[in-house]
Amino acid sequence: MKFQVDRHAATPVAQQLEEGLRQWIRHNGGGRRLPSIRRLAATHNISRNAVIDAYERLVSAGLIRSKPGSGFYVTDRVAVQANKQPTFNPLQEVTNGLWGLFSAEEHTLKLGCGWLPNDWRESDDLTYAIRQVARNSRSGIFEYSTPQGLLTLRRLIQERLRPLAITTDAQQIVTTNSGSHSLDLLVRLLLEPGDVVFVESPGYYNLFGLLHLQRIHVVGVPRLADGPDIERLEALLAQHRPKLFYINSVYHNPTGSTLTPAIAHRVLQLAERYDFKIIEDDIYADFQHTPTTRLAALDGLKRVIYLASFSKTLSSSLRVGFIASPPDLVQRLVDIKMLTSISASLFSEQVLVTLLQNGSYRKLIERLRTRLSNQMAIALTLLKKAGWEVFTEPAGGMFLWAKPPTDDETLKATAQRYEIMLSPSHLFLPDNATTPWLRLNVAYMQDPRAKAFIEANRSYANTSK
Amino acid sequence: MKFQVDRHAATPVAQQLEEGLRQWIRHNGGGRRLPSIRRLAATHNISRNAVIDAYERLVSAGLIRSKPGSGFYVTDRVAVQANKQPTFNPLQEVTNGLWGLFSAEEHTLKLGCGWLPNDWRESDDLTYAIRQVARNSRSGIFEYSTPQGLLTLRRLIQERLRPLAITTDAQQIVTTNSGSHSLDLLVRLLLEPGDVVFVESPGYYNLFGLLHLQRIHVVGVPRLADGPDIERLEALLAQHRPKLFYINSVYHNPTGSTLTPAIAHRVLQLAERYDFKIIEDDIYADFQHTPTTRLAALDGLKRVIYLASFSKTLSSSLRVGFIASPPDLVQRLVDIKMLTSISASLFSEQVLVTLLQNGSYRKLIERLRTRLSNQMAIALTLLKKAGWEVFTEPAGGMFLWAKPPTDDETLKATAQRYEIMLSPSHLFLPDNATTPWLRLNVAYMQDPRAKAFIEANRSYANTSK
Repeated sequence: MKFQVDRHAATPVAQQLEEGLRQWIRHNGGGRRLPSIRRLAATHNISRNAVIDAYERLVSAGLIRSKPGSGFYVTDRVAVQANKQPTFNPLQEVTNGLWGLFSAEEHTLKLGCGWLPNDWRESDDLTYAIRQVARNSRSGIFEYSTPQGLLTLRRLIQERLRPLAITTDAQQIVTTNSGSHSLDLLVRLLLEPGDVVFVESPGYYNLFGLLHLQRIHVVGVPRLADGPDIERLEALLAQHRPKLFYINSVYHNPTGSTLTPAIAHRVLQLAERYDFKIIEDDIYADFQHTPTTRLAALDGLKRVIYLASFSKTLSSSLRVGFIASPPDLVQRLVDIKMLTSISASLFSEQVLVTLLQNGSYRKLIERLRTRLSNQMAIALTLLKKAGWEVFTEPAGGMFLWAKPPTDDETLKATAQRYEIMLSPSHLFLPDNATTPWLRLNVAYMQDPRAKAFIEANRSYANTSK
Repeated sequence: MKFQVDRHAATPVAQQLEEGLRQWIRHNGGGRRLPSIRRLAATHNISRNAVIDAYERLVSAGLIRSKPGSGFYVTDRVAVQANKQPTFNPLQEVTNGLWGLFSAEEHTLKLGCGWLPNDWRESDDLTYAIRQVARNSRSGIFEYSTPQGLLTLRRLIQERLRPLAITTDAQQIVTTNSGSHSLDLLVRLLLEPGDVVFVESPGYYNLFGLLHLQRIHVVGVPRLADGPDIERLEALLAQHRPKLFYINSVYHNPTGSTLTPAIAHRVLQLAERYDFKIIEDDIYADFQHTPTTRLAALDGLKRVIYLASFSKTLSSSLRVGFIASPPDLVQRLVDIKMLTSISASLFSEQVLVTLLQNGSYRKLIERLRTRLSNQMAIALTLLKKAGWEVFTEPAGGMFLWAKPPTDDETLKATAQRYEIMLSPSHLFLPDNATTPWLRLNVAYMQDPRAKAFIEANRSYANTSK
């Protein structure tokens, strides 16, 4: 293998190695065996860890794979996910879609993904808090948290819900590992196989997969720019008896829309009349400048179970989320949490407490809000200029739901040309139907490739504008 | 409230406050309202955080509770869990039992608990690794891990399984949050409501609760000193068709016994004949000096699914465990992991990688093994002298299963006298039957109260010895 690794260059050795290996792979193609970790380290006079790191990145990128007892091989690379329409398997579909985004090659622009770009994340305050906890808290680095979660954290969360007009008590709050974990606990608490659950369409695909896993009958309610389609909801309630309606109130995934007070009120009236519970997923809450009406605020946490997390703003690595629950569900929720994972990470809980107490978290989300609002405005202008249709014009948050004026073929070709990774749109629909709409994450629109991609998909009817 | 807080004393303010409050509670009894956090902070000229900390500890200890919008109140303290025999509810029972140990008052001696005492934990290496990752890895503090878990970590785990003669590949390993999380993923992957699962009796109570939660029919197979009772297993196989048999091979919880090669071989023969899978729970593996035969080693990870974690040795706060799985189950296991919690903590995975790579973890477990073996020998001598019966004499690990020569009443009275918290024995039996056997954690036997308690429960037949 002929490539140089310079141990004194600014680029880390593992990254140089990865780039060299990518070239080698490009020239040599699928099926070839790579040198062993030991050998590659020896021939290039670098550490085995650097080689492991580089190989790991290539495995993540799907370029190589390891075979038991035999070493690493270049994969026969998968063709671009074009017109593939396999037998319908929602679980498989969702996880394949997710896998794509989680293990995308690093140079691709993840314009369709559901989290902030790494270079938007701010490390100073978080690093400080981590070191504080590591230095000062023996229990923090060693012990289980309490089953319900650290009380100090729950009280701080209680405080944070006050500006949203959600009145709750720390005793009603249960910490979890994430929004997904919260959903999983709630699904197991509230549902039995065969139960009916209403979801929004389009909506959060991981939830659909989770409900299929638990053999729940999923019914989609159209999501409009102001919340769920109430007329359609009423019609569906004449046919089904849902136990639960899952709603993503603010900066809805994938449409970016926000529930209005009037729709919130109507949904709650229907929930009362047809006796179903509501899960209000508010994981984008902290991206919002001025709080709007929450279902949990109107309802006072009686029928509404509220959840949010810190993964989208602070860190996806710490794994901290929470549920604010009606009082009568708390004990069983904690039971299920304990039986399935004992407790959350006390360390992560204490790190979060530090950041909430010293004001860093508040300042962080203020900066993020401003930055996202600005990006949103820029993105909307860009899309309109190119003749894309937008579902609604959000004031902030990450997501835009937009329809390109070009056909599927042009879209895919340009995405490939500009190395853009889109999220598979059909996954946002509970029945996996095809849709011309795309979820765009405006935080990735700073990259010039995004602009080029959108302009390459412009409407020729609009060229004169 | 009359007590002094000295801000310059060696004892932290929150702890002084807690002690003062405990005295006050003792004198004033249940139902009384405590001062608000703000007021107590003001009258004692201390920070509100210190008051929150103190209140939190008292809530954890069950001495006070908060009421929504009203403040903190002294609880009407729960009497010692004596002859209470409520309606049978396995889930409730397990979680109540667990709650007790997780939120026990700090001064009690948790002789029955399932983890190492805080003062056995070693912080230097762990703190170092945490700071390394916080300083050097942007992705580590921010990003999701890969769905299957960090490849470097999986390769290190693969290496660690080699001395146990478990041949596997990093592609067969999936990281999880803990042993409990591993079990939960496997239960959801492999079982449907109504399925039959064989468990060991006595065995791991959290598992029983988890299986009940998933509506699995649980059948207990007696655990003997050399592993499951093969004769009884064969008889039960004539009546039931289990999908799965859960076995805790080494330093079994709660008996401390270890599976012999002969029994392992017989179990696998039966698994073949009656076509069931085996979950080999090996979370106490690292407490063992010289590896004994693992089911996964004999079977080559075909029918056996192997799991372990780092919670018992390194830290219960980091939340890292893993599954080594037959190749055909990996993809679906990862799917379920993603749908229910997206990924494990990349930060924790990287901290563990650091400790596994720099040798600290190896040295840590060597010290723990020696310490536990010594404690085990001391405990066995002590128990035999006092005329207790022991189920088996483990060479190491934390657990001893022992039968006191005294009656239940004496046992409870002496436990109360020496402030000893025992784990509720009936929970270890899948049918929650009463049993005179107790699980003792030898790591807590260094406390003089343990010796006093055991000697207070001595056999008078043995006094002459």
